[in-house]
Amino acid sequence: MNTPLNRRWTLQARPVGLPKRSDFGWATLPVPEPEDGQVLVRTHYISLDPAMRGWMNDARSYVPPIKLNDVMRAGAVGEVVASRSPALKEGECVVGMLGMQDYAVADAKSLTKVDPSLAPLPLYLSALGMPGMTAYFGLLDVGAPQPGQTVVVSAASGAVGALVGQIARIKGCRTVGIAGGPEKCAYVKDELGFDAVIDYKNEDVGAGLTAACPNGIDVYFDNVGGEILDAALARLARHARVVICGAISQYNATGAWVGPKNYLSLLVQHARMEGFVVFDYATRYPEGAAAMAGWLHEGKLKSKEDIVDGLQTFPETLLKLFSGENFGKLIIKSI
Amino acid sequence: MNTPLNRRWTLQARPVGLPKRSDFGWATLPVPEPEDGQVLVRTHYISLDPAMRGWMNDARSYVPPIKLNDVMRAGAVGEVVASRSPALKEGECVVGMLGMQDYAVADAKSLTKVDPSLAPLPLYLSALGMPGMTAYFGLLDVGAPQPGQTVVVSAASGAVGALVGQIARIKGCRTVGIAGGPEKCAYVKDELGFDAVIDYKNEDVGAGLTAACPNGIDVYFDNVGGEILDAALARLARHARVVICGAISQYNATGAWVGPKNYLSLLVQHARMEGFVVFDYATRYPEGAAAMAGWLHEGKLKSKEDIVDGLQTFPETLLKLFSGENFGKLIIKSI
Repeated sequence: MNTPLNRRWTLQARPVGLPKRSDFGWATLPVPEPEDGQVLVRTHYISLDPAMRGWMNDARSYVPPIKLNDVMRAGAVGEVVASRSPALKEGECVVGMLGMQDYAVADAKSLTKVDPSLAPLPLYLSALGMPGMTAYFGLLDVGAPQPGQTVVVSAASGAVGALVGQIARIKGCRTVGIAGGPEKCAYVKDELGFDAVIDYKNEDVGAGLTAACPNGIDVYFDNVGGEILDAALARLARHARVVICGAISQYNATGAWVGPKNYLSLLVQHARMEGFVVFDYATRYPEGAAAMAGWLHEGKLKSKEDIVDGLQTFPETLLKLFSGENFGKLIIKSI
Repeated sequence: MNTPLNRRWTLQARPVGLPKRSDFGWATLPVPEPEDGQVLVRTHYISLDPAMRGWMNDARSYVPPIKLNDVMRAGAVGEVVASRSPALKEGECVVGMLGMQDYAVADAKSLTKVDPSLAPLPLYLSALGMPGMTAYFGLLDVGAPQPGQTVVVSAASGAVGALVGQIARIKGCRTVGIAGGPEKCAYVKDELGFDAVIDYKNEDVGAGLTAACPNGIDVYFDNVGGEILDAALARLARHARVVICGAISQYNATGAWVGPKNYLSLLVQHARMEGFVVFDYATRYPEGAAAMAGWLHEGKLKSKEDIVDGLQTFPETLLKLFSGENFGKLIIKSI
């Protein structure tokens, strides 16, 4: 193999509010060499996730913050181009935390082999990857919906939300999505088969939920926080479960975060609000991946990816997540 | 029996902020007569509870609001003075929602017989009554602490909080209380046997929790809401449970309620926040009452009542709850 260069994005400054170009560094370096037990991976598709914003803060969380000057942390799928591990061969495809770069050296055991003949590679970053596992375990394990119950999900056209609603539908629930704009709402209702959808950009979310959930909300899967979370809390059914998956409305706040002022609905309705991190379910990913793959092949589940060409676009592509501009799972194609 | 008069407090106006004298009406009326299936009860001890504040609002909750001009809803213990039910005899003692008045007519089946030879009557409004059942089921069923885990409770010298901490101690937990002022804090630590106590009026609660909970908080039992809830959320251990029992800091707010801005700790720590209403456990009260009575008789559990003499004091006595002035379960002795 010749020795091409590795383009990479690093975190240079901890963003205040929305991340900006100057928070990141762009460098072109020699491709690193794997050591014993490691492989060199050429990244093909790199995932952009709301959680990235939290990783940039110097704050206690479920994973350590990204260190300044380190490569920007990111999940990616790629091809092994050099191996010093018996576990992985050149030419095999893998998914893992490879970073926002063209090439990554990683411990073979930190990577998961994937089969590009079973599903296109980007799907391993969406329905068959972290968003899929997040939707599957978050809804079924934390939310625990029963057939006939009403499941509401925010960011319903997003990477996780679209899967949550479809899994709920498959499980026999009444599904209500909240999304922004007529195009996304039409997709949620007509393409994904939700029972109802509320356009938060053009409708009163509270009134929409009251109309769409005549018996209250049994499971609310929250990706956004803020006023939409409060609107859902005010309409919980008895023994409801609120699944806290994310809070994209809050991630770039420069003042204090806004808490859900209607949290005492939990008391009145004997309800619970529970958070989770998908990594806690790592030992059960095979179960989740098998279920998702089955539904995909049966045509019961649709996955939509929003693929942007070019590693160099990272800072501006990332912002699409926070403006709601992306439509489907946001991915950068690095080559 | 002669026909004495019935003094009673009614709700005349829905309070804005702290309840004031003019929100209530004071009347002296003929004592009512029981009909078939009913009894006439002479109230001896009447309970004052933070929940009363919520019942005064015209808002959806777990019970309907008190109607204007109706007697002020209140739990009480008293003696049957006339009976038209075979289930209860004159001279027997009962507990139930008898209202803020000297005499009440009630359906016999809505009342619970109590034995004044087993425990003094006020205890049926504290450790053996609603506060006891609230502490028992809220802590053990919703909080589900394991031996060796750290349990934190706010309003730790209050009717519910003092019982929660003692039950946690009995169950082998590390117990940390939050209370206001040196006298209450000394009581919580020295009399009730909590492992640590934080004086929220004179200490930084966050720093106190960090010091008292080196492994984080496994169960936080919240009676207060507001900043103290946020301080606890910021220090949750993995898989922590936050029990939402009340939010006395918020009940008299005239603006928007303040939500817990640190609720995303639930996500990071895979924790849950769950509310409950003690009435949901009605079928299990015998279990709770038997356990509490056993611990009381074994000397493992202490109950403290703050008994104020005179039904006429109700409006000002109620305010002691919100100023934190009461010390122990607040009760009015009506005769």
